[in-house]
Amino acid sequence: MRVLLAYSGGLDTSWLIAYLTREKHAQVTALTVDCGGFSDAEKDEMRSRAAVLGAVEHRFVDARAEMFERVLRWLVAANVRRGGVYPLSVGAERGLQAEILARVGRDEGFDAVSHGCTAAGNDQVRFEAALATLAPKLQVLAPVRDLAPSRDDQRAYLKAQGLPVPPSGGKYSVNAGLWGLTIGGGELHTSNEPLAEDAWQWTKNGSGRRRIRIGFEAGVPCSLDGRELDPVTLIETLNREGGALGVGRGYHLGDTVLGIKGRIAFEAPAAELLLAAHRELEKLVLTEDQRFWKDHLGEVYGKRLHQGLFHDPFQRDLEAFFASSQARVTGTASVELANGRSLVDGVESPFSLLAASDAKYGERAGSNSDPRGALGLARVLAEPARLFKRAGDAQAALEVTR
Amino acid sequence: MRVLLAYSGGLDTSWLIAYLTREKHAQVTALTVDCGGFSDAEKDEMRSRAAVLGAVEHRFVDARAEMFERVLRWLVAANVRRGGVYPLSVGAERGLQAEILARVGRDEGFDAVSHGCTAAGNDQVRFEAALATLAPKLQVLAPVRDLAPSRDDQRAYLKAQGLPVPPSGGKYSVNAGLWGLTIGGGELHTSNEPLAEDAWQWTKNGSGRRRIRIGFEAGVPCSLDGRELDPVTLIETLNREGGALGVGRGYHLGDTVLGIKGRIAFEAPAAELLLAAHRELEKLVLTEDQRFWKDHLGEVYGKRLHQGLFHDPFQRDLEAFFASSQARVTGTASVELANGRSLVDGVESPFSLLAASDAKYGERAGSNSDPRGALGLARVLAEPARLFKRAGDAQAALEVTR
Amino acid sequence: MRVLLAYSGGLDTSWLIAYLTREKHAQVTALTVDCGGFSDAEKDEMRSRAAVLGAVEHRFVDARAEMFERVLRWLVAANVRRGGVYPLSVGAERGLQAEILARVGRDEGFDAVSHGCTAAGNDQVRFEAALATLAPKLQVLAPVRDLAPSRDDQRAYLKAQGLPVPPSGGKYSVNAGLWGLTIGGGELHTSNEPLAEDAWQWTKNGSGRRRIRIGFEAGVPCSLDGRELDPVTLIETLNREGGALGVGRGYHLGDTVLGIKGRIAFEAPAAELLLAAHRELEKLVLTEDQRFWKDHLGEVYGKRLHQGLFHDPFQRDLEAFFASSQARVTGTASVELANGRSLVDGVESPFSLLAASDAKYGERAGSNSDPRGALGLARVLAEPARLFKRAGDAQAALEVTR
Amino acid sequence: MRVLLAYSGGLDTSWLIAYLTREKHAQVTALTVDCGGFSDAEKDEMRSRAAVLGAVEHRFVDARAEMFERVLRWLVAANVRRGGVYPLSVGAERGLQAEILARVGRDEGFDAVSHGCTAAGNDQVRFEAALATLAPKLQVLAPVRDLAPSRDDQRAYLKAQGLPVPPSGGKYSVNAGLWGLTIGGGELHTSNEPLAEDAWQWTKNGSGRRRIRIGFEAGVPCSLDGRELDPVTLIETLNREGGALGVGRGYHLGDTVLGIKGRIAFEAPAAELLLAAHRELEKLVLTEDQRFWKDHLGEVYGKRLHQGLFHDPFQRDLEAFFASSQARVTGTASVELANGRSLVDGVESPFSLLAASDAKYGERAGSNSDPRGALGLARVLAEPARLFKRAGDAQAALEVTR
Repeated sequence: MRVLLAYSGGLDTSWLIAYLTREKHAQVTALTVDCGGFSDAEKDEMRSRAAVLGAVEHRFVDARAEMFERVLRWLVAANVRRGGVYPLSVGAERGLQAEILARVGRDEGFDAVSHGCTAAGNDQVRFEAALATLAPKLQVLAPVRDLAPSRDDQRAYLKAQGLPVPPSGGKYSVNAGLWGLTIGGGELHTSNEPLAEDAWQWTKNGSGRRRIRIGFEAGVPCSLDGRELDPVTLIETLNREGGALGVGRGYHLGDTVLGIKGRIAFEAPAAELLLAAHRELEKLVLTEDQRFWKDHLGEVYGKRLHQGLFHDPFQRDLEAFFASSQARVTGTASVELANGRSLVDGVESPFSLLAASDAKYGERAGSNSDPRGALGLARVLAEPARLFKRAGDAQAALEVTR
Repeated sequence: MRVLLAYSGGLDTSWLIAYLTREKHAQVTALTVDCGGFSDAEKDEMRSRAAVLGAVEHRFVDARAEMFERVLRWLVAANVRRGGVYPLSVGAERGLQAEILARVGRDEGFDAVSHGCTAAGNDQVRFEAALATLAPKLQVLAPVRDLAPSRDDQRAYLKAQGLPVPPSGGKYSVNAGLWGLTIGGGELHTSNEPLAEDAWQWTKNGSGRRRIRIGFEAGVPCSLDGRELDPVTLIETLNREGGALGVGRGYHLGDTVLGIKGRIAFEAPAAELLLAAHRELEKLVLTEDQRFWKDHLGEVYGKRLHQGLFHDPFQRDLEAFFASSQARVTGTASVELANGRSLVDGVESPFSLLAASDAKYGERAGSNSDPRGALGLARVLAEPARLFKRAGDAQAALEVTR
Repeated sequence: MRVLLAYSGGLDTSWLIAYLTREKHAQVTALTVDCGGFSDAEKDEMRSRAAVLGAVEHRFVDARAEMFERVLRWLVAANVRRGGVYPLSVGAERGLQAEILARVGRDEGFDAVSHGCTAAGNDQVRFEAALATLAPKLQVLAPVRDLAPSRDDQRAYLKAQGLPVPPSGGKYSVNAGLWGLTIGGGELHTSNEPLAEDAWQWTKNGSGRRRIRIGFEAGVPCSLDGRELDPVTLIETLNREGGALGVGRGYHLGDTVLGIKGRIAFEAPAAELLLAAHRELEKLVLTEDQRFWKDHLGEVYGKRLHQGLFHDPFQRDLEAFFASSQARVTGTASVELANGRSLVDGVESPFSLLAASDAKYGERAGSNSDPRGALGLARVLAEPARLFKRAGDAQAALEVTR
Repeated sequence: MRVLLAYSGGLDTSWLIAYLTREKHAQVTALTVDCGGFSDAEKDEMRSRAAVLGAVEHRFVDARAEMFERVLRWLVAANVRRGGVYPLSVGAERGLQAEILARVGRDEGFDAVSHGCTAAGNDQVRFEAALATLAPKLQVLAPVRDLAPSRDDQRAYLKAQGLPVPPSGGKYSVNAGLWGLTIGGGELHTSNEPLAEDAWQWTKNGSGRRRIRIGFEAGVPCSLDGRELDPVTLIETLNREGGALGVGRGYHLGDTVLGIKGRIAFEAPAAELLLAAHRELEKLVLTEDQRFWKDHLGEVYGKRLHQGLFHDPFQRDLEAFFASSQARVTGTASVELANGRSLVDGVESPFSLLAASDAKYGERAGSNSDPRGALGLARVLAEPARLFKRAGDAQAALEVTR
């Protein structure tokens, strides 16, 4: 049996190569879909370990540009942050990774695909939902979920077989990608303990101060301090340079797809900076109604992506809406970074609605602002409340006189 | 004519005392509704200046506790931040101030009430909307709006009459209250210039590091570091102590009630800390659906308060919803404050949904998490997308064979 | 083993008594929770059949008043119609029925509870969700779901055992309750075939013409043509009398909890009349914002009830909102019924917002409607669009001259 | 002064030609923008009366196709009915009419444009909002609004000048267009009186029975009983033939843009039939989430069109969403019309999600519907409620033991 395995290089998927090869006598092709977060050294190591563990082949797909084009651009356009803080980070990758797994698996006639998700998290749902949508007839093997081997079991098995054990993340489970790094386990099993400083990865002891300018073109981030950059490079640069200044840390206490609560820490400097910059730029060029509804639909979009609905047709309808709204989101945002804090302190755009106005807030009423017009507005706004009060007062008076 | 004037002690309302007294021969009673933000010195000064300017009487109403009870508790319960950042601050006070103005004006038989709002801002709408609702027959005088005297005109008039001119805020217009301080004018007339460090008031050169614990009881903030405090004292303490650490700064580029854009800077340490602490605590004790809809309805509630609809019946319906949702929002949030940054890094509650679970996110599937259950969930979630794809594929195949 | 069985008297639950008694050697107590729809003859028959089939006891709980108080009053308050047409009917009963099953099962120390839901519908999810919430440790037996016997299998088994077979609904599956009757099967397995006239139950050959007046008190229906009636009697009267006039038929092509489409026909005269009357009365006494958001939250409320979330805390938050909104929904609606059609053609209320107004739509502008006020309103409403157009025009002009 | 007048042929705009010509010495060009509802006789009459009243020119623009393409197709796509009943009818035309007025006025160098809206209705806001957006510098004359002549005053003036008076609608004000006919005045000034049978126009004494099939292509109505028709012809046919069967009557008690209530009756056979048919067809081809959010955004879209925001950029964003959602809304709906009632009793589509399913609702679980999957789903759906209850129970137990 030829099996195509989604291989991240971690303990679960390393154990899977060995397990599928030795216990199930499968020919395993290990497929790594790179959505960011791997260093060159890590890539080399995962490749050589795959071979030693028994994979007949290791494939590496650089999906970073597609990840931006099909996922992250919409998360930026929609200003998606779960619970007001968490940019979804690695969770946003799963749908695309499953799609590429399904595509290669089907196109090349594999007998089955396999993933290393456990029964306790969201990723199993995301993988299975995507595979059920795109390749409902493809056999899916998920021994980590079904057999639930402990991490110690997995290490013991590999050692017993004389196979290499991937480097341990200690008590934490760490995942990294273009859109951020997440940390689970340890203190994060409680709701109230903060993570030790040492446990942070990209922002550890970050400090310093700097002001940057981020440019957008139709909602897509495209430049840093005036230099044009492709989105992937821009994101990787902001992760590196923002992280060194301590920017982008957070905690996310969230609702899993399975209905329970879970807590992680995350470091997402690029997401933090791009989302804040984009949101403030939008305030300059979009109307209030556009923003009000975009915010709400962004919540919907992000929640559904979190639930594994990357391939659902309603996401496409929402993207059409976001695309329409972004036509004017062109311009620059300035961000002050200082010791882990960031603050957007200025935005400009050729489509500025502030500049288009002949009125000046708090200073000069525009041609539009005949005092009687504003008074008329106030009275119309208040009219339903006035009538409501009047109807209630009239009725109360009647009741008194009865 | 006896006129009751909403008197803040600033240039507009100081000019109004003189103008109404001298030009309109009115007997002016100056009414200051204190929703926070006045120092004792400022109160003394505004009282004595009112007399000198010609007011027959100065009334001072301490409305801080009512401000919390009727406005701020809901802004906390609903996590209201305009545009994701701005807690509404002084804008939230206007409805209550207008209500007290209407109440005193009507109960004591004044011939008219008066406010000092200009034609260029939101406050005129908020005042007029509240007065139109509560006292539609009461005469309202708004010479600052109708005559539009410049600030220089106002100062010149006071000087020419030999009257005192209130201390100038320089190029800025500054307003302070329980829920924060706003700064308008100067760089804020542009979209892209940051405010000079000197222009900040409460957070100027703020620095230092501290970890605090904020307690809530049914959604109402009630303690700091274990000490029980009434909400007003708690807010004033957080404004003072948080401000000294540089926490709570922001810029708000917003949509005015008149349809134009306006930009202000704000300093709202207490609002920043309470809103973040409350939101994170909610994540521990509320379900995802509760939070998702609360967030959205909070946006609606805040937008309508911003528009001056404090007395609209729909706000009461929303408050009933918020009240129901807050019954379990009891517990403590820990916040790390460091050099202008704040981060909630832990929450606990007797109603913790994390503690209630026998599953552990990312580690241990609960009794609930039979792998086949999760797989069933994934397939049901994906079923509409699968059918949608299948229907499209079938139709495409038909079209090919035609 | 003592088993408490939710017994409706139909084929599935009749087979279950026999199966549990004979194959599982259980002592079966059959519990019928009456949420409406049973005639006295049906009740007698189901009681005697239960005994013959082997039940040790038959319990009958009249839950009609509780059904109104805890379910239907909110469906009326929220104007719930799935897909704009279907009032949820028998689906709305399942949560309450499961609750009573769990309550009796636990209080009286049964070893297990049992239901007769199949694997193909929504009811299994509603029963299991309620039981998982209220009695997570109670054992649940669902042999119809797990063994999936065909209806022919069930009949054959009963005959072979010499037991009575319940009267057949022919090719249709029919369910009736206070809130309507649903018909499944037959033509309804297709999307395009209408039901034969003969297949309709309550409205078959209904015709005639009549005008009725329905009274409400704080959102609760309370009178018919001036006679005060308790809600259950009012609903049963409207079902009987409205059905005789042919009112309340419809088709519902809906989304099941399992993600597939299903189609049923329904007859719900009382729901049709009460929902239409209530909605029109609301238009007279509520403001536009109240109605706009109530409509949307009503969709949410109904969707979640459909999904089996009757016991979810968010439903309680929504009910608090609905309760607040209903305080003024007092008055009368007139409805013209004619040959299957119904049309609300008048409403009146002591809290009428139409009567409270001194303006008259289309005829006389009110005190509020200074032409300059309306013009001011129009310009403020249009201001964002004007600025948007102006900013675009300015930018287009710039691009042309480059 | 050359004035371009939006001329409908009614009393207000007839009076305006005379008033502007004789009192203001303007050269009046009367512009009739036809969005449907005029008979050939009416067109001839309005043309000749314009000349007699003093217009230097009468222009007639057939805007029916543009009305469908830019307005009605979205009202169908979004299933817009104000308050669940009213399809907006003539209100939907105003934005387009104002746009054509502005376009002709500006392109041909008129000194001013003029409309005949009163101060008491919505149309003044729609006209002024559109003109403020598209042509903010164009002078607008609105003597009917500003001088508020009564209808008797207008008739007297015309008679005194020896000019023809347009035929009177009696006590009613009647407006007709493609999307329906509205009736105001008379009984409709009350909330509770029905309209007399005689007052109805298109549906008076309508009766009879017929079954029709309406076809859609990507959300656009395109055929009747298998005959392909352009949308305008299809709408006019349905108005005529549906009206003869008494279909499409209703009452609308609505919220005006000015904050007061207003009541009208309407006859909109085509809108009734197309909206119902379209909505049911959508249920066959769209997913639940698509429909849920489309319904809500349709409410938003319709409300804003009602308010005069036809030219607002957010409407374009919503249209992008609707357009995406409509790609599959292709197929046929069958509608039974009988004595004023209509009921969609079947739909079919090549993109049917019912046909795509291998499960059968209520009968056969699909490949997807492993009983354990459905049970898993039920438990996951209920998990937040279970944890919520458990956390509350645990806390209650603690409190008891204290």
